[in-house]
Amino acid sequence: MTHTDSASPAPAHEIETEDHVALGEDYALTASFVEKVVDAADDGDGMRLRGLLEDLHPADVADLMGFLTSEHRAVVVQWLPPELLADTLPELDDGIREEVLERVPHLTLAEALQELDSDDAAAVVEDLEDDQREKVLAAMPEVDRAAIESSLGYPEDSAGRLMQREVMAAPQFWNVGDTIDHVRRQGEELPELFFDIYVVDPVNRPVGGVAISRLLRAPRETPLIELMEPINAIDVDVDQEEVAYIFEKYNLISAPVVDTGGRLVGQLTVDDIVHIIQEENREDILRLAGVSDEDRSSGVLEIVRGRVPWLGINLFTAILGAGVIAFFEGTIQQIVALAVLMPIVSAIGGNAGTQALTVTVRALATRELTSSNAVRTFWRELTVGLANGLVLSPLVGLAAGFWFHDWRIGAVIATAMILNLLVAATVGVLTPLTLSKLKFDPAVSSAVFVTATTDFFGFLIFLGLATIVLL
Amino acid sequence: MTHTDSASPAPAHEIETEDHVALGEDYALTASFVEKVVDAADDGDGMRLRGLLEDLHPADVADLMGFLTSEHRAVVVQWLPPELLADTLPELDDGIREEVLERVPHLTLAEALQELDSDDAAAVVEDLEDDQREKVLAAMPEVDRAAIESSLGYPEDSAGRLMQREVMAAPQFWNVGDTIDHVRRQGEELPELFFDIYVVDPVNRPVGGVAISRLLRAPRETPLIELMEPINAIDVDVDQEEVAYIFEKYNLISAPVVDTGGRLVGQLTVDDIVHIIQEENREDILRLAGVSDEDRSSGVLEIVRGRVPWLGINLFTAILGAGVIAFFEGTIQQIVALAVLMPIVSAIGGNAGTQALTVTVRALATRELTSSNAVRTFWRELTVGLANGLVLSPLVGLAAGFWFHDWRIGAVIATAMILNLLVAATVGVLTPLTLSKLKFDPAVSSAVFVTATTDFFGFLIFLGLATIVLL
Repeated sequence: MTHTDSASPAPAHEIETEDHVALGEDYALTASFVEKVVDAADDGDGMRLRGLLEDLHPADVADLMGFLTSEHRAVVVQWLPPELLADTLPELDDGIREEVLERVPHLTLAEALQELDSDDAAAVVEDLEDDQREKVLAAMPEVDRAAIESSLGYPEDSAGRLMQREVMAAPQFWNVGDTIDHVRRQGEELPELFFDIYVVDPVNRPVGGVAISRLLRAPRETPLIELMEPINAIDVDVDQEEVAYIFEKYNLISAPVVDTGGRLVGQLTVDDIVHIIQEENREDILRLAGVSDEDRSSGVLEIVRGRVPWLGINLFTAILGAGVIAFFEGTIQQIVALAVLMPIVSAIGGNAGTQALTVTVRALATRELTSSNAVRTFWRELTVGLANGLVLSPLVGLAAGFWFHDWRIGAVIATAMILNLLVAATVGVLTPLTLSKLKFDPAVSSAVFVTATTDFFGFLIFLGLATIVLL
Repeated sequence: MTHTDSASPAPAHEIETEDHVALGEDYALTASFVEKVVDAADDGDGMRLRGLLEDLHPADVADLMGFLTSEHRAVVVQWLPPELLADTLPELDDGIREEVLERVPHLTLAEALQELDSDDAAAVVEDLEDDQREKVLAAMPEVDRAAIESSLGYPEDSAGRLMQREVMAAPQFWNVGDTIDHVRRQGEELPELFFDIYVVDPVNRPVGGVAISRLLRAPRETPLIELMEPINAIDVDVDQEEVAYIFEKYNLISAPVVDTGGRLVGQLTVDDIVHIIQEENREDILRLAGVSDEDRSSGVLEIVRGRVPWLGINLFTAILGAGVIAFFEGTIQQIVALAVLMPIVSAIGGNAGTQALTVTVRALATRELTSSNAVRTFWRELTVGLANGLVLSPLVGLAAGFWFHDWRIGAVIATAMILNLLVAATVGVLTPLTLSKLKFDPAVSSAVFVTATTDFFGFLIFLGLATIVLL
């Protein structure tokens, strides 16, 4: 999504313009710097704003935008130097980017986009409204427009959409000297930064790769095919999650992307992958908590729309649980202690189920859990559930027995807890495994289902046992 | 932790040895391949094992080890070619690595470690038992031993521990030609792969960096200082989480590491950072669920030891909640419907609190939430809580009113739910913010505290209101 950049601003204490320090010790923008920007925006002091902004790294400008309100962003965008604006666009959160794009005149934008690598330009154009997109594309040179349109032709989140089309390829018969000479001549058309040279056959299919640090080491007359190592070509239509897994597993820095004929059409670099990994992790952690996608720029209405459905489902399952309790109203009326104790059984079950669930979701995401070890994992979790129960239930049993002066109540809650911990382990592992088998995201709605099940069975087992034993 | 490697095995369909395909479409090992390895290990058929293993990428061998039982791993280690074993060691899960290391003779290990970059070798030596470590280090050449010992002298998880000491540095007065000639001559002493050349002053302090793809583009006579860009030098004692943040924010591929005098002592590369990012994400997601560190090689006892303390804390807080209910025993005795409905109030509160908590923990981790926007974030969450309440409570109120034929019960539960959702928003945001302010990990124990609070106040508000209104 962002341009590869091996350079970055000097450490905090060196980025000082007049009287301010933009970055704190932890490389985050300081609150006092953000305040200065807000003050200047409030005063409409454009020259001061430009002075504050012009030395920032694009990543820091993007960060700053996240801390501002929509009104202040509108002022800041006006005073950003055009080149800095171009470099900042790919770094912005989606919601903020859409907002900013509405404020930038289409000619300014068309010019800015030509400065970016094709993947970054496409990511920006993707966010434009239809009519603005047409105007911006019409104002760009044919070759840049074609590159962006071809990139947008690939499915969202595919390798084709993520790749940059600029790539350093060399025919099989070249040697080190040929390659270096070519790079010196054609520098303009190559990617801004690259890490591997892809060796291609006469129909442009990659047959191997040479890391450029290896190229530098070798004498000029060394043939490329002697330096070449096998490479992992990625199909244009592979999903980004898959791409991230391959990069992470094999410690890749870059990889060629090929079309269905195996021909080289672009490359992916690790800095883009880092952002994808963070995005996938963010999705997993939020989905487990029942939060649909939201970011710091989301308004209250958008957030509520994302969260209320999960709470609604939770409400429905909680009413089911209440139905179980209602079924035992007669028992509770006679022994009110049961009403006091029953939330303990469901709470511990819910927590243990969430533990098993989270471990399973994470193991599925990192592919540490596959059909090779699914059965073993299930049995292990069941054993863990039993062990948890054997440790905790004597404590609960003793506490409840003493509290209500009735050892039978202690025995009932202890037994119910062991059984519910077995339910928790079962549902905690099987829910995400089943979802994953059915090709659903194992994180989505798992947590609600797991706690609903442990609540339901927690109440049922505890109150059922109590009815049998105590009445 | 792992060696940088731009090459990787050919796609699945090309890695076929005799009759097997090791990798599935999704680049994970296939169940049938794992089974073949298990069968060969069971039969003690060493030649067949070696045939199966020798063409695997080290990352796949590490993966395979994760799918095997301890007994099978012992057999497989015996038959791994020594070089492949060396490359596999840095890729293994910690628990498995410790186990494997106990089985490798120290001379074999000393030899294997010399093949690795200093960061990988140190990561392996770190896991050795004290007496084995001494023997292994004693069997290594002085220079390698010194590198490892110096690496282990830095604090765990610091940049100094993670960095590799091999680095490509060039004096300020060199030009492109000097640099390429140096690389061709000194190739052996340079890192296996590198991406940037660090330009250093006479006392070895980095003053800038040149991406090697930029070096390649420039004519031989270009001075390095003309190509040089500002770089972000990282102090040896900076924590790995900080390092990951800097790499991600500025899209770095590599960065120089400097000692307290600002002198160049090593470099960090992005492939190591990808592993750190995954590790930090893993920690966050597991800690939120109350799971201490465990991996697929952890035994049941280890897992239980990690999870039971959280369940124990949860048990304690659940008993506090039960205490609240016990306080209202008289009320429940008169209106048993309250026992039926009260878990609904606490369940929705717990879920809403977890949503707010997770969003906050994530925003803190990515530094999207700082003191600049903490107050605004808090108010936003409180507004979201109120909005959630206004949407959901009429539903609950109506349902409860109809169910128990008493509109006052409906009014009580609706009011209690709105208030508890405000409690959930407050505690969901303030808990991680406070922990973070006090320099604790905002994920640790937050979830238990949040649900305990929403349970406690859920019962208190609902039963308290009911006592006032209904009796």
